[in-house]
Amino acid sequence: MIVVMEKDATEEQIAHMTERVQQLGLKAHVIRGAERTVIAAIGRDRATKSESLESGPGVAEVVPISAPYKVASRELKPEPTQIQVGQFVAGAGKVGVMAGPCSVESEEQIVSSAHAVKKAGATALRGGAFKPRTSPYSFQGMKEDGLKLLALAREETGLAVVTEVMSTEEVELVAKYSDVLQIGARNMQNYRLLEAVGNSPRAVLLKRGASATVEEFLLAAEYILNEGNPNVMLCERGIRTFESHTRFTLPLATVPYLHRKTHLPVIIDPSHGTGHAYLVPDMSLAAIAAGADGLIIEVHPTPETAASDGYQSLDFAQFEATMARCERVATAVDKQLVKMTQG
Amino acid sequence: MIVVMEKDATEEQIAHMTERVQQLGLKAHVIRGAERTVIAAIGRDRATKSESLESGPGVAEVVPISAPYKVASRELKPEPTQIQVGQFVAGAGKVGVMAGPCSVESEEQIVSSAHAVKKAGATALRGGAFKPRTSPYSFQGMKEDGLKLLALAREETGLAVVTEVMSTEEVELVAKYSDVLQIGARNMQNYRLLEAVGNSPRAVLLKRGASATVEEFLLAAEYILNEGNPNVMLCERGIRTFESHTRFTLPLATVPYLHRKTHLPVIIDPSHGTGHAYLVPDMSLAAIAAGADGLIIEVHPTPETAASDGYQSLDFAQFEATMARCERVATAVDKQLVKMTQG
Amino acid sequence: MIVVMEKDATEEQIAHMTERVQQLGLKAHVIRGAERTVIAAIGRDRATKSESLESGPGVAEVVPISAPYKVASRELKPEPTQIQVGQFVAGAGKVGVMAGPCSVESEEQIVSSAHAVKKAGATALRGGAFKPRTSPYSFQGMKEDGLKLLALAREETGLAVVTEVMSTEEVELVAKYSDVLQIGARNMQNYRLLEAVGNSPRAVLLKRGASATVEEFLLAAEYILNEGNPNVMLCERGIRTFESHTRFTLPLATVPYLHRKTHLPVIIDPSHGTGHAYLVPDMSLAAIAAGADGLIIEVHPTPETAASDGYQSLDFAQFEATMARCERVATAVDKQLVKMTQG
Amino acid sequence: MIVVMEKDATEEQIAHMTERVQQLGLKAHVIRGAERTVIAAIGRDRATKSESLESGPGVAEVVPISAPYKVASRELKPEPTQIQVGQFVAGAGKVGVMAGPCSVESEEQIVSSAHAVKKAGATALRGGAFKPRTSPYSFQGMKEDGLKLLALAREETGLAVVTEVMSTEEVELVAKYSDVLQIGARNMQNYRLLEAVGNSPRAVLLKRGASATVEEFLLAAEYILNEGNPNVMLCERGIRTFESHTRFTLPLATVPYLHRKTHLPVIIDPSHGTGHAYLVPDMSLAAIAAGADGLIIEVHPTPETAASDGYQSLDFAQFEATMARCERVATAVDKQLVKMTQG
Repeated sequence: MIVVMEKDATEEQIAHMTERVQQLGLKAHVIRGAERTVIAAIGRDRATKSESLESGPGVAEVVPISAPYKVASRELKPEPTQIQVGQFVAGAGKVGVMAGPCSVESEEQIVSSAHAVKKAGATALRGGAFKPRTSPYSFQGMKEDGLKLLALAREETGLAVVTEVMSTEEVELVAKYSDVLQIGARNMQNYRLLEAVGNSPRAVLLKRGASATVEEFLLAAEYILNEGNPNVMLCERGIRTFESHTRFTLPLATVPYLHRKTHLPVIIDPSHGTGHAYLVPDMSLAAIAAGADGLIIEVHPTPETAASDGYQSLDFAQFEATMARCERVATAVDKQLVKMTQG
Repeated sequence: MIVVMEKDATEEQIAHMTERVQQLGLKAHVIRGAERTVIAAIGRDRATKSESLESGPGVAEVVPISAPYKVASRELKPEPTQIQVGQFVAGAGKVGVMAGPCSVESEEQIVSSAHAVKKAGATALRGGAFKPRTSPYSFQGMKEDGLKLLALAREETGLAVVTEVMSTEEVELVAKYSDVLQIGARNMQNYRLLEAVGNSPRAVLLKRGASATVEEFLLAAEYILNEGNPNVMLCERGIRTFESHTRFTLPLATVPYLHRKTHLPVIIDPSHGTGHAYLVPDMSLAAIAAGADGLIIEVHPTPETAASDGYQSLDFAQFEATMARCERVATAVDKQLVKMTQG
Repeated sequence: MIVVMEKDATEEQIAHMTERVQQLGLKAHVIRGAERTVIAAIGRDRATKSESLESGPGVAEVVPISAPYKVASRELKPEPTQIQVGQFVAGAGKVGVMAGPCSVESEEQIVSSAHAVKKAGATALRGGAFKPRTSPYSFQGMKEDGLKLLALAREETGLAVVTEVMSTEEVELVAKYSDVLQIGARNMQNYRLLEAVGNSPRAVLLKRGASATVEEFLLAAEYILNEGNPNVMLCERGIRTFESHTRFTLPLATVPYLHRKTHLPVIIDPSHGTGHAYLVPDMSLAAIAAGADGLIIEVHPTPETAASDGYQSLDFAQFEATMARCERVATAVDKQLVKMTQG
Repeated sequence: MIVVMEKDATEEQIAHMTERVQQLGLKAHVIRGAERTVIAAIGRDRATKSESLESGPGVAEVVPISAPYKVASRELKPEPTQIQVGQFVAGAGKVGVMAGPCSVESEEQIVSSAHAVKKAGATALRGGAFKPRTSPYSFQGMKEDGLKLLALAREETGLAVVTEVMSTEEVELVAKYSDVLQIGARNMQNYRLLEAVGNSPRAVLLKRGASATVEEFLLAAEYILNEGNPNVMLCERGIRTFESHTRFTLPLATVPYLHRKTHLPVIIDPSHGTGHAYLVPDMSLAAIAAGADGLIIEVHPTPETAASDGYQSLDFAQFEATMARCERVATAVDKQLVKMTQG
């Protein structure tokens, strides 16, 4: 890290801070410039160490140099992590699509959705059984009954199942019925939950918090990796900005940026990322063109009557049309859209 | 809610949406304007009901009218909720200050801090025993040992104890040693945790999430109130914006806005709200002038060596000077700064 | 617009506001709901009229219904506006690329750039002669000399010339040498300048302000259209958010959103939209996949020594590789990438 | 600046970048750390020089150290700049208030407003004659007739006049009738206009752009100072964030931050900063408590019928009550609220 001293910092202050840097186990280089002195602190510094130095006497600013994440870093592990999700391997240079309703509502709804998304080319079925809802008065999900219906749909179609887990107590139960544990955006910094899924044998789909920096996002992944679970997929689902014509702002530059910084696969959620069904198809294509390893899309038999998120769900016909377009774009960027083999 | 139809919506579409509104148990008024038709849906609508209508045929937009929170609303309960926190009653027209270190680090650190903040005029001691940290490699708190030290400091000073709870499993334990359960910004939408503290006999200090709208903030409070715990203090601690000269942007207009919309007391955290110790004193005064019911401030014996948040912690002398200034501003806005009586 | 009354609004207040609505030339429908009364104001209301009603007695909120822009609206003119820019027609279902250095620096630099971008498939040359710079100490452009060099490069290559105009005094001069007048993001609400280019015979490339809502963006276009110049291209170049790993956040959902709301062509600037050269190629592909009518990309012979924006400029080889990939994606979305015919 | 190299940067790349740093006239210190090499570039670097280095081979990041502004910097000129605005001197440790309607609408309106705000304790009259409006269909101001009415109101009351100038052509005209030239938020980076007011003998009130960083704000001031006009007041009027319950988010930490970084006086605009009249009084008090040198407040005889900004204007009685409260807070922070002497 670099400790930038105030212009009028005294020699005593500079000496004091030099010593503080050394106390942290780092080597200090004092560089005296025309305008001010800076102390370069060299060694394996973590953001965490540098924080308190800012309160030191005569310090103007502390500038971290090393990224604070480690296991998630591409510098440490250059080759992409590959994660098996049913018949699709995320991170292996192809594109896979997970699709299904926001919430599991009934056997008929989830099974018909599973058949429809499989037919259109998805390899995994999404569907919420435990639903985090902004209002306590909204539908909170079918809970274990919903999980059982997801498992049934998997049995009928062979699709992998992706579903959200909201608390440590539910991890084991959800893992029993599903292939991928989803951590929602609101829980991205629920550290106990991250630790719990870090100890699960299931792959994890970690959604970016709506105001999380990419660094915080990678540190959240680091919590999971650090517990021993290497199978983390990063999911960009839109950030909160001043824009109100979309529910969130979907920043696709996250895709090439993350590919440069981390070896973990990157999935895009154009449904939450826009919040309006009519924007989902074009943003699905854009996500693939930007290099995404996969998509997760909300699909519902009749969006107008959905128990949640109807406004951003595609119906079966819209999803099928979108998938056909996605396949062409995937080919144009030398990636294959993976579909289920017959079975 | 108001269902705004597209300009070229057909009569059939208008009839369909009118019926949909009625199916939700609402009364529909169709209003035909010069440019377009709108359907006013009258009745006890909750945001939750209106969501899916947006996917209806010919619908341009759905505009909610009623606030989605209910128990937290000032329309429902006009008189301020008063919450006892040790010798201070939040919401009773006076100002109280909670202060102390970010993390409990040792007996000496927490007890000396307790004496110092009490002497300067605080009525409650803050200090983290379970610490949510962005990085898994950062200090995670002293856990139960930290709670015991907080209880010890309370015994010695009479200050109330405010400390964070991070997961449902810890609620009972933390409640055993503390007076106020703090829900951190990162857990504002951890609904299981909100439900758990909603069932605790302790008061709750609910921090606003860094990208939560005020409406989402009140709905998070509603989760707690809805479980039967009426003692929720709302804490504004800064939001995430494009500004980088402060760690977060502290929007003090939240204070008069919340006072208009809800009966719950409003506390300001100028430490997290700015992220730099030198900005804390002036923003403490500003918060009181804006009408805050209380402040929560980070104070550390030696910020430069703090295990966490040193950069935004005041030392004892700075805190004492700040409190003297706060007292004058509180008086100027006809509010008394509450201090501990001798004991 | 809808005037939402406070829950406890009196009959007198409701009558007063009903009268106010009528004074604005609108028809008032009073709707009495279970919780509150709303007044629907029907007629050709413009946002502008409704503003002051919010101060009325007993008013909780005023919700506008009609979009405030008119001439730019797709409801008014459903077919896309087509704008000739050299050999490319923006808005005609194909994709065109404008490329070149941030600033014109020398004859050799701009002419070599023109040849290179033409060879790679661009149809227009970008280059700044008048440069708005954040710091008064930065390079401010070659001014008229730069314009002459752009005209020279056009003569040699046949490319159209796109260049920025910063003030009303310069409009005529810049128009003399260029094909498209660019309005920079910082001037998006410089209304005198918008009026001036609205009176020019040249097409306009209007960049979205970094914190402009899409509605404000369309109203800025409306200023130009309203003066009689119908040839306005809307350029999304990134918005300011909390993200710092990119210079701006590029929200590609703007593309399908604008296509739904307006008939004007939409151009994407992935260079400013990301602020880092290594993110530009993937975001160029994504923009085309999202449906953009064109791209504007910064290209420099030696980005490392550029007088401005070197960090986000592609070199010739990078640009050529990007264009080859763009062509494939354009084809995959049934759009042709337009190139210069021989000459 | 600090040039941070990639972890796997080659010796050749390090040597190349070292040379580039030297070519910029800076001294290069190469520091080899455990994880990566950084090159500290020492000398009078300006942000502008460092920009292009980011494109260099093997470069991970370029971190600027010096602030890019100079004349505005408190490091250069520690004592506060004092600016005479009628009977009030901004920057001299007291508080002054400028108040009046958003737009000048008629003689009666502006003269009655002038008398009312003077009586309540303001020392300057604000009022717009040239109005920048988001929509071309909104009221655009009375132009020169409005300026004449402002001058008339000044004659009758002795108040100084503050009014906006929107383009270079109008600077001379506006300067003829006013004491302070206001640059609106939308023109903060209209550099030609900044240069023009930099050559005017009048003081300037420079409003922060809604998405301008504080650094960009100070660089805009630098444009004016650099032309020779030292009398620049910085006005914080709210930034654009995701919050929608206020029109803008008013970040009062700007006040102590700017006081630390610059010698220029800081004025707060709680009217635009909140966008709702009922939030203005408390935020006025908060601004003074935060240390503001002055306030600018919208006041209108009948806000409900105002030609612009009625929703955020106080009426005379509200303003008078607010001023009485402001005076008490000013005293509590050892600052006097300056009022007009009799005359």
